[in-house]
Amino acid sequence: MAQNILIIGGVALGPKAACRCKRLLPDANVVLVDENTYISYGGCGIPYYVSGEIARLDDLRSTPYNTVRDPDFFRTMKGVAVRTGTRAIAVHRAERTVTVRDLATGREEDLPYDRLVLATGARPRVPDIQGLPMGNVLTLTNLEHADEVRRLCEAGNIANAVVIGGGFIGLEAAVALTDLWGVKTTVLEMMDQVLPGALSPTMARMALEDMRRHGVDVFTGERVVRFEGEGNVRGVVTDARRIDADLVILSAGFIPNSELAKAAGLEVAPFGGVIVDDHMRTSDPNIYAGGDCAAVTSIITGKPGYLPLGSMANRQGRVIGTNIAGGDATFPGFVGSWAVKLFDLSFCGAGLTADRARKEGFDAMGVGVEQLDRAHFYPEKHMLGLELVVDRKTGRVLGIQGASPVPDAIKARVDAVAAVLQHARPTVGDISNLEVCYAPPFASAMDVVNVVGNVAENCLAGRMHPVTAEEFANLWEKRAENGVFFIDTRPAVAGRQIESRHPEWHAIPLEEIEAHVGDIPKDRPVALVCNTGLRAYDSGLILARHGIGGVTNVMGGMQALGKIGFEP
Amino acid sequence: MAQNILIIGGVALGPKAACRCKRLLPDANVVLVDENTYISYGGCGIPYYVSGEIARLDDLRSTPYNTVRDPDFFRTMKGVAVRTGTRAIAVHRAERTVTVRDLATGREEDLPYDRLVLATGARPRVPDIQGLPMGNVLTLTNLEHADEVRRLCEAGNIANAVVIGGGFIGLEAAVALTDLWGVKTTVLEMMDQVLPGALSPTMARMALEDMRRHGVDVFTGERVVRFEGEGNVRGVVTDARRIDADLVILSAGFIPNSELAKAAGLEVAPFGGVIVDDHMRTSDPNIYAGGDCAAVTSIITGKPGYLPLGSMANRQGRVIGTNIAGGDATFPGFVGSWAVKLFDLSFCGAGLTADRARKEGFDAMGVGVEQLDRAHFYPEKHMLGLELVVDRKTGRVLGIQGASPVPDAIKARVDAVAAVLQHARPTVGDISNLEVCYAPPFASAMDVVNVVGNVAENCLAGRMHPVTAEEFANLWEKRAENGVFFIDTRPAVAGRQIESRHPEWHAIPLEEIEAHVGDIPKDRPVALVCNTGLRAYDSGLILARHGIGGVTNVMGGMQALGKIGFEP
Repeated sequence: MAQNILIIGGVALGPKAACRCKRLLPDANVVLVDENTYISYGGCGIPYYVSGEIARLDDLRSTPYNTVRDPDFFRTMKGVAVRTGTRAIAVHRAERTVTVRDLATGREEDLPYDRLVLATGARPRVPDIQGLPMGNVLTLTNLEHADEVRRLCEAGNIANAVVIGGGFIGLEAAVALTDLWGVKTTVLEMMDQVLPGALSPTMARMALEDMRRHGVDVFTGERVVRFEGEGNVRGVVTDARRIDADLVILSAGFIPNSELAKAAGLEVAPFGGVIVDDHMRTSDPNIYAGGDCAAVTSIITGKPGYLPLGSMANRQGRVIGTNIAGGDATFPGFVGSWAVKLFDLSFCGAGLTADRARKEGFDAMGVGVEQLDRAHFYPEKHMLGLELVVDRKTGRVLGIQGASPVPDAIKARVDAVAAVLQHARPTVGDISNLEVCYAPPFASAMDVVNVVGNVAENCLAGRMHPVTAEEFANLWEKRAENGVFFIDTRPAVAGRQIESRHPEWHAIPLEEIEAHVGDIPKDRPVALVCNTGLRAYDSGLILARHGIGGVTNVMGGMQALGKIGFEP
Repeated sequence: MAQNILIIGGVALGPKAACRCKRLLPDANVVLVDENTYISYGGCGIPYYVSGEIARLDDLRSTPYNTVRDPDFFRTMKGVAVRTGTRAIAVHRAERTVTVRDLATGREEDLPYDRLVLATGARPRVPDIQGLPMGNVLTLTNLEHADEVRRLCEAGNIANAVVIGGGFIGLEAAVALTDLWGVKTTVLEMMDQVLPGALSPTMARMALEDMRRHGVDVFTGERVVRFEGEGNVRGVVTDARRIDADLVILSAGFIPNSELAKAAGLEVAPFGGVIVDDHMRTSDPNIYAGGDCAAVTSIITGKPGYLPLGSMANRQGRVIGTNIAGGDATFPGFVGSWAVKLFDLSFCGAGLTADRARKEGFDAMGVGVEQLDRAHFYPEKHMLGLELVVDRKTGRVLGIQGASPVPDAIKARVDAVAAVLQHARPTVGDISNLEVCYAPPFASAMDVVNVVGNVAENCLAGRMHPVTAEEFANLWEKRAENGVFFIDTRPAVAGRQIESRHPEWHAIPLEEIEAHVGDIPKDRPVALVCNTGLRAYDSGLILARHGIGGVTNVMGGMQALGKIGFEP
C-alpha cells in the first residue's frame, strides 16, 4: 500500500523534503499543509525585494524558469498535494494522525501519516513593547509584510524608519530602506554591538561604521521603551532618546514554532528547537523535523544550537526526503556559517566568536589581519580582513570572521575554513598550511587565510602582543594618562602627516627603526602601527633584539583602524 | 656559536625560509646564494607583466610598499646576506660545506652550513626541436625573458606568436599576447586537450572554446617538428601544419633542478623532485628542500607528486624557516589546488581528474553541473560549472574542477572542497552537506557545490544516466546512425526554435512530458536536455515511471553545451 507522507509547513524545508521523497518514492502519497497562502518562497530574498533589487514579489516564489511555485505547480510538476490555508492543530502519535483545520471554513479533519515531517519554521520575536500591535510596525519574514513595506516606500509615505534589532535581517533591512528609497533609517540594538554572536566587537564596529557612513544611525546598548502614534506608528522611544518613525521593522530574532511538537510530547530544546538525531528524526522515529523549527548540533561544541537559514533548511530537507523514502542520509550538524552584505562591505563568518568561545570554556582569542585579496602586484585587488578565533591553550581554531568589499572573496576564505571546521579539529598550523587555489588574479602566494594562521601562531608563541583596532584607538585616546609611546612604522611620508598634527605620534619607518632605537624610551609602553601589521611586526622583532620587549602591535594596522572610523 | 644557515636559491621558497628563520633566530648567520641577478620575484605574475596589466618589471619584485627586494633590502631589512651571481657547484655533506662559484670572477669557495636549504627551483622543459636555440624563442619563467617579450610587443615587432604547451603558463601567455597587444597567437599542445592533468576533457573543451572565441588558435594532439628562421624565428612546423611566428613562447612544463641534490646522494624521485619528509627535510636531516625542486606527497594518493606553484613554495618556505630555527612545523602534503584566468572564464581545480584517478586505480567518474552562483532571484549572478570526480565503488570524492566568469566565485567552491580533501576522505554525501556561507548575494540556498554532490549521489544510485556535453554533441552529430530520440525539456519557446530547424530535436517541456509519453518511442535510446540539467532530471524520473528507463541526461545542459561551442 502507498505510504502516507505528511509534511507540516511549506516554505523551504517542507517542499524540499516533499519533492525529494516523491522523486525517490513515486508511489507515495505526499501531502503538504501550510496555514498561509504563499508557500515555497525565498524568505532570505525579502530585503532585496524591499530594496527594489528584485522586481516582483513572485520572483521570490518562482523557479529559475519563472514558474510560480504554487499548489498547482507542486501537484502537476512534483506530484505533491499541497493544502494552503490549513493549520495543523494536533499530532496524535499513537494513531499516527494530524488534526488540521481549514482556516476558511473552520472544518477540521484528521490526516493519516506513516511518516510526518515538522517544517513549521519560526516566527519573529516580537519584543514586549508598549503600544503594540500598531500600524506600519512590520516584520520582514513573510511576503505579505514585505509587500506592505515596499508599497509604503513606493508611495513615498516613509521618511523615517526604525529597525529594531541589529542582526542579519535588521541590517539588511536598513541597507534596503536607505539604498533605494532614501529613507532615513535608524537601527536599534539592545546588545552593545551589531551582529552579536556573529562578529567580534571590532568587526562589529567595522559593520557599524559602514552603516553610519551611508547615513544609517545605529544605536547599540539601547532598549526600546515604547512606540508612539495612533493607528500608525509616529515615533520610537528608547531608554536614551526618541526617534521619528513612519515605519518600524521588527527584526529581533526568531522563536522556533515547536508548540505542536511539544504538545505531542516530542523532545524540545530549552530555547524551543525540536531535538533531532543525525538522521533528522525527532524522539519519535516516525516524525522528522528540520529547518527553522529544529535545533541542530554544533560540530564545534557538540551542543544543540540554532541557525535559521534557508541553506540549512534546504540541505536538511533533502536528508529528510531521502530518509522518509527509505534511504539512509545523515546531517552532520553545523558549524554556523553565515554571510551578510551591507553597503561597502560584506561580512562572512563560521564557527564561534571569541566571546562565544569563552562562554563555552575555551581560552579564546581573536587574531585579526588585513591583507589584499590578490597578489599585491595584480592591478585589481581589495583589502580583506579576517579574524581567526583560537584557543590559547591548544592552538585549536574555533571560528573565523571576515570583511571585504567583494562578497565572493570573503566567502572563499571563510568557506575554506568552515569546511575544515566541519571535518577536523584544526589548529593554527592547519590554517597556515591550508592549500587554496592560487594564481595572481585569485589570491596572494601567501594568501590572507594562511597569513591569519601565521599571525595566530606568532601570537600564541608570544612573538607578538596584539591589540584590536578598538583597543588601540582607546590607548591613543587616553595617551595623556597611559604614557604609551606610539610609533608609526609605515614609510615616512604616511606617518609624518599625522606626526605633524600630533607630536605624540612618532613616524619611525621600519627601515629606520634600528637606527632610532636609542630614541625609544625603555620605561614606557610602546605601541606600533603600520598599514596592515606586517612592518609593525618586523619592527617589534627588531626592538625585541634591542631589549624593548612586550611591544603592542595593532592587528590589521591602519586598515583596520580606518574601518572602525579611527582618525588620529 | 651562531648557526650557519645556507640557502641555495632566491626566488620564492629561499627568501621565505631565510626571513622566517632569521626572525625566529636573530643571531643566526643566514646566507642566501643565487646564480641570477634578480631574486625574490613573483614569477607567477610574469604573464601579467607581458600583458601590460602590471606596469613595471620591478613591481614583481617589490614589497606591497614598493620597496624593491634586492640584496640590499634583504641585508638591511631582514638581516639576510644575499650573494647573487653565485652558483652552487657541489654539496659536501660530510664537511657540511657547499662549493660556490662567483660567476663574474670565476672564483670558487666553500661556504659552511649547519642547516642547508635547497631552493633551486625548476627550469622550463625545452622540447627537443630542430633549430633551437633561436632568436625570439623565449620562456616566461624569468624576468629577463619576460622583459624581452614585452619589449618586442611594445615595439610592434610581433604579428604572430606561437605558444608551445597548453598548460597554465601557456594559456596565460596566449591571453596576455592577445588581450593587449593583439598578437595573432596559436597554442600548440601535444596532448589531446589543453590543461592536461588539470581539467577533464569536457572542461578543457570549455577552456579551448574561450580561447578560440577570442581569436586564439589552439591545436591539440599536435607535435612541433621544427622551427624555421635564421637568427630570429619565422615559423613553426608541426606534424600537421606550418604557422607564421615572430615569437615563440616555450611553456612545455618544468624540470626540477635537483642535480645538486642527486650528486650529493640525496633521495630524488624518478621525475626529478627532491624527496622530503613532512618536515621538508631531505634524506639528510641537515638539509631541507622545497618549492619547485622538491617532490610533495599527494594527500589523496599518498604518492610523491609535483606542483610547482609560488603558493606551495611560500608555505613550505615558512615551514622550513621554522624548522631550521629549531621549531617543529610540518607540511601535510598537497591535494593539488590550482587556478587560471583565461578570457571570459576562470578555472580552478583541486585533487585528481577522472582520467588521473583511473590511472591511480579508482573507478572514477566526473559529474558535471551548471548553476547560478547566487540565488536565482538575486539580480547580479553568473552561471558556474563544477565537475566532481568520484569513485563509483565507494562514493569517495577525489577531486573537483570548475569554471566561472567570476574568479572569486569559482575559487570559493573549489577551495571549500579542497579544504575537505586535505582533512578527510569525503564522500558525495559530505559535499551535499557542505556548509558554506549563505545569503542571496553570496550563494543559492542549495549552493552549486552542494548540487554537484547531490547529482553525483543520484548518478551513483543509478537515478540518472549522465553524458558529458561532448558525448551529447557526439550523439547529436551521429543521430542518423544511432537513432537517439532527442528531447528538449526547456520551456517550449526555447526548444521549438531548434525544432523548427531540426525536426529530430523534440521540444517537449517538462510540464508536458507526462501528457506526451505516448509520443516517445520505447524502442529507441532517449536523450534529454534542458538549460542546466534539472528539468531533464525531473523529466527522466517521469519517463522512468512510465517504463522508459535508462534515459540519457546531459550534465550541465545547454549551458555546458554552449560553453563547448555546440550549436544544434
